[in-house]
Amino acid sequence: MEFQLEEAIPVLERTPTVLSTLLADLPARWIDAREGAEAWSPGEIIGHLIHGERTDWIPRARIILKQESYRRFDPFDRFAELKSDRPIRDRLEEFAELRAGNVATLRGWNLKEKDMALTGEHPELGMVTMRQLLATWVVHDVSHIAQIARTMAREYTQAVGPWTAYFRVLQRDARQ
Amino acid sequence: MEFQLEEAIPVLERTPTVLSTLLADLPARWIDAREGAEAWSPGEIIGHLIHGERTDWIPRARIILKQESYRRFDPFDRFAELKSDRPIRDRLEEFAELRAGNVATLRGWNLKEKDMALTGEHPELGMVTMRQLLATWVVHDVSHIAQIARTMAREYTQAVGPWTAYFRVLQRDARQ
Repeated sequence: MEFQLEEAIPVLERTPTVLSTLLADLPARWIDAREGAEAWSPGEIIGHLIHGERTDWIPRARIILKQESYRRFDPFDRFAELKSDRPIRDRLEEFAELRAGNVATLRGWNLKEKDMALTGEHPELGMVTMRQLLATWVVHDVSHIAQIARTMAREYTQAVGPWTAYFRVLQRDARQ
Repeated sequence: MEFQLEEAIPVLERTPTVLSTLLADLPARWIDAREGAEAWSPGEIIGHLIHGERTDWIPRARIILKQESYRRFDPFDRFAELKSDRPIRDRLEEFAELRAGNVATLRGWNLKEKDMALTGEHPELGMVTMRQLLATWVVHDVSHIAQIARTMAREYTQAVGPWTAYFRVLQRDARQ
């Protein structure tokens, strides 16, 4: 499926509500579940998404849009804001507010086809386009939704007993 | 995480709203996306979940609860109700209604620890307990949420360009 802004924005808009519906007021053991010692819990993933709203997607799109001669992105710290003492409900609300503002910014730019081909420089990946950045924002959202749901599924790997055989997700090692 | 009914019910209750929030009024190409020729689209997965509400979880729990001498479950047809001409919004509403009724039934039984150890006979897996059946219901929900989100992510495998390198979910073959 090729990238179309009018198909991408509806996904970006829904993510905070999807995550709030799934996680707000859920018993704490689900929020703190993790697939392995190094894996992120659903609560930590919300912190990571908050950090992305602040430092990654829109700031990088802005660098691309400005088209100054130096347009290298700051590295994104994947591990920033993972930990928090704030309740999950507060973090979900913060994510929703940041996302709403960022989607409004994106809509306000009213990007055209020619803007989608503008480029910036990723610190590791090299030249990337606006289109690729925005597609990655969507993929980042839905792959973290998938990760949270998978993490929850794996909590019951033992509890399902013989049904393990029917769920591929319960058979993979924790790093996949 | 051992199975606790009071931790499982909140997940079962949330699934229809999570899926409606994610999929209702989303551009059709997301609803019809599939990871491969044999894979299910998000729309088809909703049909599969509807069929489970009608024929699988509560009917099987009822068989276990009755403790009659013959308590073998009917086989579950994984491919029933996949296809539908009805709009996705209608199907999401039907799933929500069926699920609400089924969760009310489950709550109404007021199951105790001793009920959780009662058994039925799975047509392929043999003896299973009420606890295992209910844990599997939860795992089935969240693994299909993960599947839908992953299916959506993979639609942009090409669109993200060099960012593919950062997403394990974009690197696996379609059947995983």
